[in-house]
Amino acid sequence: PQGNSKVMFKYQPVDLIRKYFGEQIGLYFAWLGVYTQLLIPPSVLGIIVFLYGIFTVDTNVPSLETCDENLNITMCPLCDAVCDYWRLSTVCSLARASYLFDNGATVFFAIFMSLWAACFLEHWKRRQMCLKHTWDLTSLEDEEDELRPEYEEALQEKKAKLRAQAKKKGFLCFFLTNVPGLCFVDFQIFVTFSAVFGVVVYRICMLSVWSMNPDPEAKASVRMTVTTTGIILNMLVVLVLEEVYGAIAVWLTELELPKTEEEFGERLIFKSFFLKSMNAFAPIFYVAFFKGRFAGRPGDYVYIFEDYRMEECAPPGCLIELCIQLSMIMLGKQLIQNNVFEILIPKLKKMYRTIQEEKGKKLAAEDEENEKEEKRQKQQFDKDFTLEPFEGVSPEYMEMIIQYGFVSLFVASFPLAPAFALLNNVIEIRLDAAKFVTEIRRPDAVRCKDIGIWYNILCGISKFSVITNAFVISFTSEFVPRMVYQFMYSVNGTMSGYTEHSLSYFNVSNFPPGTAPTTTLITGVNMCRYKDYRDPPWEPDAYTFSKQYWSVLAARLAFVIFFQNLAMFLSMLVAWMIPDVPRSLRDQLKKENMALMEFLLNQDQEARAKSHSPQCPTPCFPASIDVLGDRNPPPPSELKRNDTPG
Amino acid sequence: PQGNSKVMFKYQPVDLIRKYFGEQIGLYFAWLGVYTQLLIPPSVLGIIVFLYGIFTVDTNVPSLETCDENLNITMCPLCDAVCDYWRLSTVCSLARASYLFDNGATVFFAIFMSLWAACFLEHWKRRQMCLKHTWDLTSLEDEEDELRPEYEEALQEKKAKLRAQAKKKGFLCFFLTNVPGLCFVDFQIFVTFSAVFGVVVYRICMLSVWSMNPDPEAKASVRMTVTTTGIILNMLVVLVLEEVYGAIAVWLTELELPKTEEEFGERLIFKSFFLKSMNAFAPIFYVAFFKGRFAGRPGDYVYIFEDYRMEECAPPGCLIELCIQLSMIMLGKQLIQNNVFEILIPKLKKMYRTIQEEKGKKLAAEDEENEKEEKRQKQQFDKDFTLEPFEGVSPEYMEMIIQYGFVSLFVASFPLAPAFALLNNVIEIRLDAAKFVTEIRRPDAVRCKDIGIWYNILCGISKFSVITNAFVISFTSEFVPRMVYQFMYSVNGTMSGYTEHSLSYFNVSNFPPGTAPTTTLITGVNMCRYKDYRDPPWEPDAYTFSKQYWSVLAARLAFVIFFQNLAMFLSMLVAWMIPDVPRSLRDQLKKENMALMEFLLNQDQEARAKSHSPQCPTPCFPASIDVLGDRNPPPPSELKRNDTPG
Repeated sequence: PQGNSKVMFKYQPVDLIRKYFGEQIGLYFAWLGVYTQLLIPPSVLGIIVFLYGIFTVDTNVPSLETCDENLNITMCPLCDAVCDYWRLSTVCSLARASYLFDNGATVFFAIFMSLWAACFLEHWKRRQMCLKHTWDLTSLEDEEDELRPEYEEALQEKKAKLRAQAKKKGFLCFFLTNVPGLCFVDFQIFVTFSAVFGVVVYRICMLSVWSMNPDPEAKASVRMTVTTTGIILNMLVVLVLEEVYGAIAVWLTELELPKTEEEFGERLIFKSFFLKSMNAFAPIFYVAFFKGRFAGRPGDYVYIFEDYRMEECAPPGCLIELCIQLSMIMLGKQLIQNNVFEILIPKLKKMYRTIQEEKGKKLAAEDEENEKEEKRQKQQFDKDFTLEPFEGVSPEYMEMIIQYGFVSLFVASFPLAPAFALLNNVIEIRLDAAKFVTEIRRPDAVRCKDIGIWYNILCGISKFSVITNAFVISFTSEFVPRMVYQFMYSVNGTMSGYTEHSLSYFNVSNFPPGTAPTTTLITGVNMCRYKDYRDPPWEPDAYTFSKQYWSVLAARLAFVIFFQNLAMFLSMLVAWMIPDVPRSLRDQLKKENMALMEFLLNQDQEARAKSHSPQCPTPCFPASIDVLGDRNPPPPSELKRNDTPG
Repeated sequence: PQGNSKVMFKYQPVDLIRKYFGEQIGLYFAWLGVYTQLLIPPSVLGIIVFLYGIFTVDTNVPSLETCDENLNITMCPLCDAVCDYWRLSTVCSLARASYLFDNGATVFFAIFMSLWAACFLEHWKRRQMCLKHTWDLTSLEDEEDELRPEYEEALQEKKAKLRAQAKKKGFLCFFLTNVPGLCFVDFQIFVTFSAVFGVVVYRICMLSVWSMNPDPEAKASVRMTVTTTGIILNMLVVLVLEEVYGAIAVWLTELELPKTEEEFGERLIFKSFFLKSMNAFAPIFYVAFFKGRFAGRPGDYVYIFEDYRMEECAPPGCLIELCIQLSMIMLGKQLIQNNVFEILIPKLKKMYRTIQEEKGKKLAAEDEENEKEEKRQKQQFDKDFTLEPFEGVSPEYMEMIIQYGFVSLFVASFPLAPAFALLNNVIEIRLDAAKFVTEIRRPDAVRCKDIGIWYNILCGISKFSVITNAFVISFTSEFVPRMVYQFMYSVNGTMSGYTEHSLSYFNVSNFPPGTAPTTTLITGVNMCRYKDYRDPPWEPDAYTFSKQYWSVLAARLAFVIFFQNLAMFLSMLVAWMIPDVPRSLRDQLKKENMALMEFLLNQDQEARAKSHSPQCPTPCFPASIDVLGDRNPPPPSELKRNDTPG
């Protein structure tokens, strides 16, 4: 599968992969194939949803109102003192872009995606069943788990130590082996959050510093520049921390000293998945649910470090920022990981290795000229040895599962995610295949009967995604406020007047000293507007949350409940309707079992006919396949049927 | 197990039950045993929660305030014209009773119960695994399903008909077999809802008719009388409809003509469970979520049939009514079903049968005097034949599952439900046992490897109960409004002033003509109060929902989301932490499998040693237990391990 790009449109030779690499890697490629194949419908639908947004953007009342310069809405300044008031119509293009991802079709797409996740899991279950049967893995579960040599060694050492020490330190030992792990995980969570917060602080500082720049051109582009650099910073942090966390997870798991290889693997996966996913999703969660929620209101902003205002989302809502953040991190991660980590770094490592070898050869050449002839005929295993060692399929799975997280967790904000994932995977499959065949040493074949803990992680992500999507639709997007306006406050049942309604009034005389704009191009401003539902200054409870605020909040929460329960119910229905075992396989299994029974019966009868003292007496025959029909006592059904008339 | 009441404290002889009655009935009693045993902790905890309510009722501020006659709160009349204003302190006792079931401990009890449900399901899974192994049911799944004779007969008839008719009526046939079922189910849903609504109408009418009674004594007791008779009516309707629905479900399923006995059973159970549970829970759902929600407000009540006001809950909230309704239906159903349906009616049937027989005997005696001698020595099977026929375990399961529904679905409103269920089950087990042994003909033994669809129904109820409990706590009980008051509106952070805060004002001059009280004992009333969060008459938006209303609603919805996700997460954690197969059983299974493998290997080697042309060549040996070790191709792991150094 190298080089030839036509191969991307063919099915994978999964059986051949299994024969050459063993079941574990075979299952990985089969799973990747199923995942990629099933990404096609959501990709198509996602593109349709996006196109629907493009085609209806000109009929969308809120964005038209935002762009309408006649409405002449004066907004409150975005920073203290140096920023001026501004017209709402200046964010017209952002409002239009926001609508592309924040329209009614997105809600249906989010519900579709939770159904799709259920379908995907069921489909993989069926495929795995079939593979299990064809690859002859059904009886594998009975194998004994191997003890890890490291564990045995440590056990020996511990025993020796224990003999020397008193017994009372048992608790301390337990403490010493378990607590560092927990501490380190906590520490890493802290690191991740600090990183996210650090980027936030970077953005806040840069914004306020650049805003002081007197050049109007620089002022205009400051937001864009800061956002872009912030996202790039975020992405770099994510990429670097991911590599760091991978190493730390291995180290921590080794510290925990699990008993068997299987346990080691599971714990490692769990830890690194936890750390890596938190790392990858933390900036996105921040933008989706926290950014701009704690910024305060004009006249009462929230300040950090005494001086810097908390950042707000752009006026058309946080969804467009979430969308940009998500697409950048997802694309950037995939591009960089595919190109740099999976191609460039192995190449560099190989180069370094070759150089080292050359050096070694030269030294050897100087020392032992006579062995030259033997060296020249390089054997295949010599060539193989120069390749990179195989590091397990866990990193491959991890990459894909994190991608699955991007595709499902925030699909409500970015319907194009499945399409990007599909594009990536079509290439990824062949890149991985090429890597396995040509770049690394041939791995030891490992038999395993399923994808193990990864399936549980997939299930967990799918369930969690229902909740995140519910919250994204109701709290990040403007879908619910729009609906509430249309059905509760609108005069004529249309959306006209929504923009006006969603902005609160602020009396500029209420600015604390030093925070009002020092110079302004817009004269005669008494009231400026800001995006929130608060009572206007002329009401008795000025600037407290208004009745609209609470009704919109109630509607948002009601929508979360409705969406979550609907999506969960539908997924359960889908999972229940699709049988776990395909019908053809079930029939096949039945037939085979009957053949086995017949075979055993024949064997038994033969043995009985030949000798009346069989080598293995009946009681030792296990109870679980009781086909010989000499159970004690006889089944009551036979007895009873003769007793009762009728 | 008859008569001796000491037997109630012993474990059931499940193995003996299985030997005598077969696996199906054995599993039923084992399940009932596990369920009853596991009811003990929630019973104890429920009683503790109830006692906590009793001991803290005197320190509960809202009920103290309700009882405080000095506050002198005048409430709006409960019916038009004939009812007078009334003092809030007159419902003091109801408010105190309400607190017993509506205190903070109930919330924790509800969360505990969802964890308990997860534990119960897991525990039963483990027990079933053990029973499956001891009772030798693991290989049962491969049995062929038997076709029902009714199906085969109908098939024959259909074929004959089809031959006669044209093929184009295929759609009509499909239509004729499937649509009546759906129609009937719809019709029965309609009947159930009508019954509930009928009782509501009965209550409304009785209330308004009795209120016109000039006698003040009659007036005072009218509410109590109407509520009690309403509940008794509800209960009777539930009991009668349950029997009717049972019969209709059988008839409908026969109409559907399922192919196999198994399919027939599953469909029947599903239908009758659906109908019976809807029937049992509809009145409770009505009280929990609908009663009093659509009653309107003073001056703008909702009327049905133009004349009758929709019913409201009593002022301390709907929870106490839900509680009474639940306890009455649950207890009444259990008492009546246990005593009347399970003891009295079989006795009556037997009596009737005996009388019929005596008659028959007399006739026979007149006809054939000579056969007297033979008749006198009555055989055991003659005696058995006089007993009732066995009707399957489905009705027994159904009763218990509906009880499980009562225990779990609304446990937040009635923490004593598990205790009542426990009490009932301890008796029920022995009653059922006595019935099976002495009252009915010995059933045909049926082998089955699990409790089948009932497990799924239990899972479904447990999941659904999380949602209902979340809604009961946040919408039926006053828990959330109290919390909101304490943390948002209270002046000093205590509950004092809550009662005052939770009542809205109504200006009596705003009563529509003819609805104000005609005669009144309380003079000088300008404002009366009613339980709702609406703006007072002196505000610009008089009588619209106030800011408090929306904030309380938002808090209620937020609580639903919080509770549902917490309970679901914790149950999932419990289910994940408890392994499905007990450790001892897993070790046992491993050992047995190894013994089987050894046996097969020995057999095979023997056969090979004896002859080189075995009766059954290797390829016919099924792939699923590949123990002979001559797979093609050799596992790559062995090949590879020699290739790569290190």
